[in-house]
Parts: sequence; C-alpha cells; structure tokens
Amino acid sequence: MIGNTFGRCFRVTACGESYGKGLGIIIDGIPAGMKLTVDDIQPELDRRRPGQSAIDSPRGEKDKVEIFAGIGQDGNLTTGAPLGLIIYNNDTQPIHVQQYRDYRYQMRPGHAEFTYYVKYGEYADWCGAGRASGRETACRVAAGAVAKKILARENIEVIGYVKQLMEIKCPEMSFEEIKKGLAEHPNHINCPDPEVAQKMIARCMEIKEKGDTAGGIIEFIARNVPAGLGEPAFDKLSATISHGIMSIPAVKAIEFGAGFGFATMTGFESNDQMYYDDNGDVKFKTNHGGGLLGGISCGDDIVGRVCVKATSTIDIKQDTIDVKEHKNTVLSPITRRDPTICGRAVPVIEAMVAMSIVDHLMLARGFEAVQRLDKEYTI
Amino acid sequence: MIGNTFGRCFRVTACGESYGKGLGIIIDGIPAGMKLTVDDIQPELDRRRPGQSAIDSPRGEKDKVEIFAGIGQDGNLTTGAPLGLIIYNNDTQPIHVQQYRDYRYQMRPGHAEFTYYVKYGEYADWCGAGRASGRETACRVAAGAVAKKILARENIEVIGYVKQLMEIKCPEMSFEEIKKGLAEHPNHINCPDPEVAQKMIARCMEIKEKGDTAGGIIEFIARNVPAGLGEPAFDKLSATISHGIMSIPAVKAIEFGAGFGFATMTGFESNDQMYYDDNGDVKFKTNHGGGLLGGISCGDDIVGRVCVKATSTIDIKQDTIDVKEHKNTVLSPITRRDPTICGRAVPVIEAMVAMSIVDHLMLARGFEAVQRLDKEYTI
Amino acid sequence: MIGNTFGRCFRVTACGESYGKGLGIIIDGIPAGMKLTVDDIQPELDRRRPGQSAIDSPRGEKDKVEIFAGIGQDGNLTTGAPLGLIIYNNDTQPIHVQQYRDYRYQMRPGHAEFTYYVKYGEYADWCGAGRASGRETACRVAAGAVAKKILARENIEVIGYVKQLMEIKCPEMSFEEIKKGLAEHPNHINCPDPEVAQKMIARCMEIKEKGDTAGGIIEFIARNVPAGLGEPAFDKLSATISHGIMSIPAVKAIEFGAGFGFATMTGFESNDQMYYDDNGDVKFKTNHGGGLLGGISCGDDIVGRVCVKATSTIDIKQDTIDVKEHKNTVLSPITRRDPTICGRAVPVIEAMVAMSIVDHLMLARGFEAVQRLDKEYTI
Amino acid sequence: MIGNTFGRCFRVTACGESYGKGLGIIIDGIPAGMKLTVDDIQPELDRRRPGQSAIDSPRGEKDKVEIFAGIGQDGNLTTGAPLGLIIYNNDTQPIHVQQYRDYRYQMRPGHAEFTYYVKYGEYADWCGAGRASGRETACRVAAGAVAKKILARENIEVIGYVKQLMEIKCPEMSFEEIKKGLAEHPNHINCPDPEVAQKMIARCMEIKEKGDTAGGIIEFIARNVPAGLGEPAFDKLSATISHGIMSIPAVKAIEFGAGFGFATMTGFESNDQMYYDDNGDVKFKTNHGGGLLGGISCGDDIVGRVCVKATSTIDIKQDTIDVKEHKNTVLSPITRRDPTICGRAVPVIEAMVAMSIVDHLMLARGFEAVQRLDKEYTI
Repeated sequence: MIGNTFGRCFRVTACGESYGKGLGIIIDGIPAGMKLTVDDIQPELDRRRPGQSAIDSPRGEKDKVEIFAGIGQDGNLTTGAPLGLIIYNNDTQPIHVQQYRDYRYQMRPGHAEFTYYVKYGEYADWCGAGRASGRETACRVAAGAVAKKILARENIEVIGYVKQLMEIKCPEMSFEEIKKGLAEHPNHINCPDPEVAQKMIARCMEIKEKGDTAGGIIEFIARNVPAGLGEPAFDKLSATISHGIMSIPAVKAIEFGAGFGFATMTGFESNDQMYYDDNGDVKFKTNHGGGLLGGISCGDDIVGRVCVKATSTIDIKQDTIDVKEHKNTVLSPITRRDPTICGRAVPVIEAMVAMSIVDHLMLARGFEAVQRLDKEYTI
Repeated sequence: MIGNTFGRCFRVTACGESYGKGLGIIIDGIPAGMKLTVDDIQPELDRRRPGQSAIDSPRGEKDKVEIFAGIGQDGNLTTGAPLGLIIYNNDTQPIHVQQYRDYRYQMRPGHAEFTYYVKYGEYADWCGAGRASGRETACRVAAGAVAKKILARENIEVIGYVKQLMEIKCPEMSFEEIKKGLAEHPNHINCPDPEVAQKMIARCMEIKEKGDTAGGIIEFIARNVPAGLGEPAFDKLSATISHGIMSIPAVKAIEFGAGFGFATMTGFESNDQMYYDDNGDVKFKTNHGGGLLGGISCGDDIVGRVCVKATSTIDIKQDTIDVKEHKNTVLSPITRRDPTICGRAVPVIEAMVAMSIVDHLMLARGFEAVQRLDKEYTI
Repeated sequence: MIGNTFGRCFRVTACGESYGKGLGIIIDGIPAGMKLTVDDIQPELDRRRPGQSAIDSPRGEKDKVEIFAGIGQDGNLTTGAPLGLIIYNNDTQPIHVQQYRDYRYQMRPGHAEFTYYVKYGEYADWCGAGRASGRETACRVAAGAVAKKILARENIEVIGYVKQLMEIKCPEMSFEEIKKGLAEHPNHINCPDPEVAQKMIARCMEIKEKGDTAGGIIEFIARNVPAGLGEPAFDKLSATISHGIMSIPAVKAIEFGAGFGFATMTGFESNDQMYYDDNGDVKFKTNHGGGLLGGISCGDDIVGRVCVKATSTIDIKQDTIDVKEHKNTVLSPITRRDPTICGRAVPVIEAMVAMSIVDHLMLARGFEAVQRLDKEYTI
Repeated sequence: MIGNTFGRCFRVTACGESYGKGLGIIIDGIPAGMKLTVDDIQPELDRRRPGQSAIDSPRGEKDKVEIFAGIGQDGNLTTGAPLGLIIYNNDTQPIHVQQYRDYRYQMRPGHAEFTYYVKYGEYADWCGAGRASGRETACRVAAGAVAKKILARENIEVIGYVKQLMEIKCPEMSFEEIKKGLAEHPNHINCPDPEVAQKMIARCMEIKEKGDTAGGIIEFIARNVPAGLGEPAFDKLSATISHGIMSIPAVKAIEFGAGFGFATMTGFESNDQMYYDDNGDVKFKTNHGGGLLGGISCGDDIVGRVCVKATSTIDIKQDTIDVKEHKNTVLSPITRRDPTICGRAVPVIEAMVAMSIVDHLMLARGFEAVQRLDKEYTI
C-alpha cells in the first residue's frame, strides 16, 4: 500500500485506521512564523466528528488533536519544520471489534472490504473497514484546517454546504447568504437554508427508520483565489482538486461550474465573457466555468459540486459472499452507522479543496515568498 | 510551468504546442520485450486528428508519429528503455500565426489565454493557445496507444463513445453492442448507434451554421480490469483516473457508475450485492459503483462519464478585454475551429483511462512481473 | 520546508525536532502480514540513542517507540496500511532551552543554524538545532529497523562499522569477522576489532579532554542483495543510496567499492572479471565495483564508505557572528555534545542503505510480489 | 525501467540509447521570457562529444541539437512551456552493430550489460550498452546548458576540471586561475594547468598503448550560490547533487569540501568560523564545508570532487561468462572506446550540479519569482 500522501509542496501524509490506536498526520511544506495551536484545528475536527446528532453514527470519538512537532519554543509559531499531529482513538470498544470479527469473511456490499481482501488477503484489516474507513477523513480535516489558516492570510475562503439530500434541494443562494445561513442556523446536515435543512433531516430520519441511508450533493466555493494557480497539461488546479476529492470515501462524482450542464450548452452559452469594471479589475459576466480557465484559476469563485453516495452500512439484509467458506450468504445488519454522511463530509471536501489550493500557491510562489507573507502575518 | 508528466510507474512526459515545430513524448516504465511499431500508435492518432469531417477543425495536421528511442535492434521489440516519440506539426501556416498575432491581447472567452497571460505575462505563447491548445492531446493519445497495448496482453479493453451531444442521447447499449456499433458504423461523432450519430452530426451542423459549437457527454468503459488495482487513501484508482481526465482541455465533470444519480439513491439501492456464480467467480448483481469499491477496482467493468464543453472558439462576437490597451472590447471571430470536439475527445479520454490503469497495474505488480508477461507475449 | 520524505515505494515521512514534544514517523509501502512489534525497532534505536558512554552526548533520551497505526487486531501483523510511530522526547530540560535561547543569535560554526536563519529568519527553530539536529536520525533508525525486517525475509543483511576514527584504522576484515567482532566485543565506537576499538575510544577521550571532537569513516556492507535492483539513468541504486546517506547530518563523502581509489586504477585493474562457479552461479573475481554494475546491484556485496565529520559543537572558543547585533563576536562553548558521533552514526547509515534497497526491491517487484513473500513468512 | 527523470521543479526527462535513432530531452519548469537558441546548448554539447582527440572514442557523433518545443513565435524566447530537444545519432554504423551482436551474450566486465540482462533478459539492449551507454550523458549536458543559462541570470557559475588523472595531480588553483587556465589553454583533458594537462594526456596515451584506460578525479565549483538553497532532512542540496552525480555512468565517489579528509580533522579544525567583513557581508574564514551548512548552501563556493573510474571497455583479454551458453569464456577486445572519459565527463558533472541548484532555487522561490527575474533579463 502506498497512497497515503497528498500534495507536492504542501504535502500531507497520514496514517491510522478505524480501530487502531490513533491517527497520525505529518504536514510538510509549512511556512515559518504562523501562529498555530490546537484551537485552529479542533473546531474543524468538531464539525466532522460523529456522535453529535441522530443523523450521525453514534460512535463517540472525541477526536482531540495534539500537535507534537513543528512548533517553536515561543508564541506557538511554526518554524518551517513539518507539523506532527496525533489523534488517539477513544471509542474502539471490544464489543464492536467482536462484531467485525464475527463477520469478517462476509463481504459488506458497497464497502472496500472486498477489494482490500483481494489486495491483502488474510492480512487485510477487517475491523471497521480499517484504513478504508471514513475515520481517516479526520486526518484530512486536520490538515485542511492548517491549509485554511494559510489561505486566510491571503483572504482566501473555502466553504461547503449540502446542496441536495435525496430529492430535497437547497435553493440558489449567494456566497454571503450561504455563509450567513450556516452561521445563524447551524445544523447537522450543513444546509444554509434552515427550513430546507429541517426537511433534509426529516427525510433522513424517515429513511433511517427503514434501516436505510441517504445520499446527496455538496457544493464547495473558494473565494478570492488569485488568478494563475494551477499548472498546464496534467497538473491543472481542477485536476488536483478532482484527484483530492475523488479520493474521499463515498465520493462518486465531481463537476466544476456548469458541470454536466455544459452538455447541452453551446460555446456561446458556455463562454464567460470578460470586462474591466470601473476599478479596472478583470471581471466575468457569468461563472459557468467555475472559476477556471484552462483548468487554472481565473480570479472568479471556484465552484464545484460533489456527489456523496449513501452510507454502505445499512440495517437491511443483503446478499453477499463469504470468502472463507467460498459460498453465497445473506448479511445480517451489524454495527454502528451514519444515516447519512453528507453533513459530516462538508469539512472533508473543504479540506481537500483548501489543501489543493495551498499546494498550487506554493508551487507558484515558492516557500520563500510564502515566508515573506508570514512576516506580516505575525506582527 | 511544470505539470507535463503523468503517472508514477508508467510515466508519460510530453511537450509541444499548437504552433511550434512539433510534439514530443517520452514514456518511462515500458516493459521490455513488447513488439511495438508506429502501426500500434498511428491508428489511435488518426482517430483524434482534425480535418477529417465537417464537424472537425479544418486544420490539416497529419499527426505522423516517429519512434526514435526505446526499440531494440531486432524485431521491433521494446528494451525496457523509455520510448521517445515525435510528431512534427505540418500545418502551422503563417496566415494563421498572423491572425493570432493580431488578436493576441484580446482575451478569447472560455480559453486559457487569460490565465496564461497572468502566469507568463508578455511571454505567454499567444499562438493558437500554445501549450494549452487541444493539440497537446495528440501526445496523450500516442501514450494511450502504448498503454492500451500493454493492457491488451492482459485482455483489458478500454472503450469510449459519445453518449450525448447537446440534448440528443444515445440509448442504453451493452459493451458488445457499443463495440459492434462503432466497428460496423464508424462515424465522426463516435456514437455507436448509427441513427443517433446522424442526428448528432445534423444537430452539430445546425449549430455550426450559427457560428456556434456543441457540448456533450462521453462514456468510457474498461473491461477485465483485475480486482485490486488502486491504492488506499489519496491514490485510489478513481482518483488517478479523475486527475487524468480532468486535466484534459474542455473537460468539466466526471462521474463513476451511477455518479450524480447516487444523490437520490438510498444505501440499499446503491450497494452492489455480491454472489458467486456457477463457476465460483465473484459477481455483482448490479454495477452502480462503476467497477470500484473503496476507489479500487473490484473486477466489474469500470464505467464513467465525462462532460466535454463546447469549443470555446466561436464565430459570434463576444465582449472581452484587451490586456494591452487595458480596455473593454468586442472580439471578432477568428481562426479555424471544431464545431464540436466530442468525437475527437473519445480517444483522448480512453488514453487517460488506459494510462491510469497501467500505472496502477505496475504499482501493484512491479516491473519484474510485467516483464514476465512480456515473455509469453512476444513468443 | 519540504524534504521530510524519503523513498518512492517504501516511503518514510518524518517530523520532530530536538526540543519539541516528540518525533513522528509514517512509513507507507508496508507489506501486509509481517509480524511487527516494538521489539523489532527498539533495539536499533538503542544502538543510536545518546547517553550510553563517555564518548556520547550525556543527553538522557530513552527513545521509547510506540506503534500507533498499521497493525491489525490479531498477532501483531501488519495490514498493508502505513505504520505510525511516535517517540516522545523526555530530556528537554528548561536549563538547556535557556542556554540555546541565550545564544540564539550567535551562529555556531559548522552547524545548520546559519542556513536555517537565512531560510526562516526569526522563526527558525533556535533550540538545539531544531529539525537539523541529529535527533531526527532516530526517525531514520526506526524506519530502518522496519526496512531491515523486510530485507531479512529475503536473507538480505546490512551491516556497518567504524573503519577509521581520526588516524586510527580498523584492519581489513571479512564480512563474517566484522559481524563476529561486533557481536562478541560490543563497544560504543562500533569497531569490530576490540583492540582497535579501545584505541579509538582512548583517542576520542584524549580529544574530548581538549574540548574538541573527532571525525571518522564508516563502512557499510549489504549482503545477498539480488542482482537487478536499481533503475537506469537517474535512479540507480547507487544514486538512491548516495541521496539517502548524504542527507544524514555530518556526512560529507561517500564512495562505493574502490571509491576514490579508482582514480589511480586502469580499466583492467578496475574491472571485476566474471565466472560461473561450480554451482553454476555467477561470481566476480574481485569486488572493486562495490556490488554495482551500471549503478545496479550485480549480486556481489554492496560495499561503501562514508565520512562523518567531527561534531560541530565543541568546548573551545570560536569566532562567529551575532545576526541580531550584526557584529562579530566570540562564541563561548555551551550545551551537551558528543565527543564523536561515529559510533552512533552506524545504525543511521545502515538504515538509509536498508531503506534504499527495500525501495528498489518494491519498485522492481511491486507490492503484490512482496505480499506473496509475506505469506510464507508468517506461517 | 523508470528513472529517466531528474528534478522536482526543474524537471529533466530523457530518452535514447547508444545505437538508437536519437536522444530526446524534455525539460519542464522552464521560466518564461528567457532567450534561448541552439547556440546556448551546442557549445556545451561540443565539450562532451567524442571523436575530438586521441584520448576520446573515435565515434564520430556530431551531437547537433534541435529545439522543437517551448520557444515562442518571436525573439527566441521561452514561453514557460516545456522545452523539447532532440539529438539524432549519426554514427551508428552497421559494422559496429554487428560487433555488438556477435558478442551480445559475453558479459563485458565493468559494464552494466550483466545487470541489464538480469533485469530485461533477452530483450535487454545489447548494442553499445543501450540506455546505459555514456551516450545518454549528452542529454544531461543539453539540459545542463539550459540550467546554466538560468543560473547565469543570477550570476551563479558552475565550473569543473580534471584535478587528477591516475597519479598525476593538478596543483591547487584559485577559482579565477582555473577559469583562466581553461580559457587560455583549452585542452582535451580539461585540466587548467597546461603543463599538467600535457602530462595527463601523455600518461593517458601511454596507458592506451597497452590497450588499457585511465581513471581520475574531477573537481566542481559553484560560485555565487545564494545562502539558503536546499531543504532540510532528506532533500538537502548536498543530497540532491550527490543523487545526480552518482547517477552518472562511471562515477563511484563524491565528497564535498574537505570530504574524506574530515576523517582526521577535529571539530575545531573542521568548523568554518564566521565573520562580517567590512561591507557587512557574512564570510567564512575557511571553506572546509564545501559551501554547505546542514547540507544547505551557506553562500560560500560549493566545492566537491568526483571519482571517475577508467573506461570499462579495454583492448585486453578478460575472463567473463557467456550467458547464452552458460559457460566461462574469455572476452576478446571489441569496438571503439575512450582511453579516458575524464575530460569529457567534466561538462556532465557541471550539468548535474547546475540542474540541482536550479531545482532548489525554484523550490525555494517558486515559478512566479523566477518569472520576475526573467522580465529584467530580456529587456
């Protein structure tokens, strides 16, 4: 197995599994002189952690993060050395381990279990999906919090929200309305329209009652990304973001701007015409392109949507195979689960977008330039 | 600029621009002992090259490829050394260069011109979109042809076709029907249903008459991919393919399996239940997951869809900016263009899928194992 | 700062500094099914840790390692997931921090302090050399222990010893004699000849008395490395090993086989002539090449020598600069130090050699093949 | 085979073998706006190419380089797109191919032939050492010429010369004396002292008469490298340079500054004490460290020495094996060869040093910063 590193200049390496002792994250490419404490990271982790409402898994992880490397002696300032973070697991109860042990050879449909069994055989981690568990996304969120802090210095914001849960859709809202909605009406489904949020949660509970789970769509927006981020050919900003987001468990689709809607648009309808505004700034009449031209940021909002499938773990019998007995079987429902992960996936998606932007920012500007910005930052 | 390399084990590096002397491709990670001549590559390039019908650009590039490195003295066999390929440009006429020169400071909406100007200023290649031109996709197709040859030894096939052009949709067809349709009714829009193909072409011509261009959706299918390809966490097979495909000019969306349709499916509806068939082989009752479990190949067909936006170059006046004069202006139409690139994009998308699969195959098996397969292959 | 990852397939990422809370190591590319406990790692760390004799630094780090990720529920077996290791620092006393604080602007000659100050300015970690401290080599040794365990399954051994300390040289000894010497006469300078070891230690103490420190040469030997490891052109095995070893603090030179001695050898003298022995195995009459042909392993012992300079921290006044006052000054001796690091550097050098070999082994064979070996291993 | 790419930000990918059609080089990471023609590259290639004197191989390659990608329409300026270079082989005569064919199963001692045979079996390129031939170093020199051009804008110079051939040594000379010597007394062994050069050449001819070949030592110096280049831990500037240089065919050893001489130096003798000179610039009293502190450039000259072994191809019978017949045999001398490659290796070593420095420069400063420098450069 490799694959546990993301990024070239802002490089995040993670480890840890669902029922191991803990999760570790090393972040290389940290600018020096940035004030950083757990208070910068913990709130993001708290947005993702389970056990906070009836539409989440009841697993009681507190996800308390510790920074053990990369901070200097005085003032909680980064030194340029890689950050080391650790999050110990605290709700890996023997009863749940036993449940997984009992069913380890019965492949759970929709889960990575089967592909890991093919890759690692008997040695594959059968407990709670191991490294393939959504638990690993805590590492992404922790690293994303650091990325967001770097972006904040340049006034770049990355937000996400649930745009659709099953057939229930959030109406079109502006960036400011979304932020306001989420701030004033915080809710576990992370939908900025409070009425729609209630409908989504109700729909989710209704599905939960049947032992089933719900899918949805998350939209992300990155504002104030400077024009020019992204490299030509294979390493466009859009390619890096897609790579990062498609690596999130349960994500099956991504689109930028008009996305699949481009299929029925002509070139004239698609093109975002340009003009100088009264301040002499470059503006676009529309943003069908999702803030990208040639895959590179053009200065407008970077906008995309991501489809998150319903949690695979359900409380309904399913046909499957027993790889030990090599026979067909019926899987009886087990273990704790999320009625939907759409709400909790929002900070994970924001994290991958933020990490991608920081990576390209450093690739374009280099470490010295990012360093210079730090100087002002800490004063 | 970096970004001109794709892959870790099967590593493709490309260069060349729209109006330069030619395109170069170096492919590292080539197994030794594979018979390879230009006849393996040229047919794929011929599928992509322009100037073959009224729905393509009239640019008359022949895209003749030469292999100048990586082949041994006898029998056209690879030696394990990297392949060197070159394709000289042969239709870069001064009249077209002059057109681009005249308009170099007028940013063409929908094109990468503006973002390159931000990145490289005066030095940005203003001629025919330079490195950002679709011309670079010839490199992808050439490398894809080599990847497909490697995959063919393991009986892995990658196909693509136009599933939708504007509002015209191809009906659901089986893998065999698609292959048969494309083989028996070859057409420039690469749609396997001959009647639908005619409708698509007619629709495209209708749009062309108005000086406009057409968007669409391409579906790709990879058959016989062994289970277990893809790495956990950040380097899932789905992430690699998404990275590759999203780096193709004009691509704005990708989805696997049910894709965005997962938004309205419950977990029970989403999960692909499993069974052993009469031969004892693992089978899935459905393929909503698009051949992926946890982002790793599960043995079923890998299926995805890609949205290709309409060509940005149109024959309609558009508002834009003149970056030299720093003023608003109206862009008059110039230069040659494709009424749609959907047909020509099919081999490009197949190429990125094929390259991604080979890369993960080598990552999993290593070069020695791929070597052993070669032995049998050439006998 | 980046640079905290080594390897492509066996990928070690490390963090942690001299006076931070601890050191973290994430190792990606771990084969599944390998039995692994702290008992496999701790003994190697114990060979490196300070405070064990009069020729070491008196710093009392215990270097206790904890494995917090990558091990399955049963039998201490790896699962294929990345390993997470943590070593908490336990001797970062305030008195020493204060010493470093008092002298933070006085650049210590021979140390990385000045170059880090140039890179990170005020934010550079001034305490105990921060990330540039030899303390980071504990991470290398921990990862090296895991690499050695993987190599052991294929009967590959990597050993090192001090061949020279100042002008005192160890006589020529065979591989078996070196191993026997080190096993039967363990000593803190890691020289396999017990009499020479005593002389080296005595010389070192003599130099220490004057407040000074001692340099030396370490030889490493890797036995049973299969022929064919290493990639052509830029990624030869010799290049990877050199990269790894030259990245160790205090290392200033490396040579393979006859090394600089090749300067006065003719081609006939240099070439290692070949023959089949009575078993039909390929043998070399000599090993001037140090087990490498074209930078790739040829099956003979891989042999090299590394020069380790004397510890920069000395108890003698030195001219230097004060970067705060921007004036010349004289540095008075401070802090704890190693009279020589040659003995402690031996496991560090072995670690980088072992990591390099495992990386190339996986690159050649892929993860699946290494996996197959595991199967036999654990039974 | 992979391994044909060097660098992270200034990324050189090469292909081509001894008796193929030609050599290709793609260089990614090129700043835009740099004037570049073949006249910048050809002179460096001419320093390396064979057939220019009695101490070179008589092979008559002209090494004419063509730039086919990466240059804009006007003024020979780079655009930021990757450079594409091609050098066609023009002296691959059938008579020589036949010689290699006749002896293909007889492993030539000291050559990479055996290790390639192990890796690629029958498919290994047996002709003129294939990809392992010194011919590939033409690619390095071409890329090095581009790297030097980038460095020249910042006043950074990289020079090399033969310091020792067999037992004949060049006296100590200053940087200026070396440059002057090489400029005023150009000679094929690239030794700056004209009398010593004649002795070296005479010694080489004497050895050649016996059918044998000669080894030697090359020193390189990089002047005006700014302090702060190199990344901590595994990617020090010293590690990158060592990686690059150790990947050159025939190189077996590298040392920086006092190198192996550090073995007998105490810490006090090793440390380069510092001071501010009258201009307030940081200076070092000595340069034992070879311009490096903690593996990062400190502002002083970067100095190192490299041992180049004698050419493996000799005109003397040698014992070896026939891998086809699986028997011992005696190899009779064949083919063209270099009596020494020390003179021709000088530009190759300079190239790897220059490429390493540019790579770290871009890593530190990013592409945008290098871009800004270009602006001034071209005016």
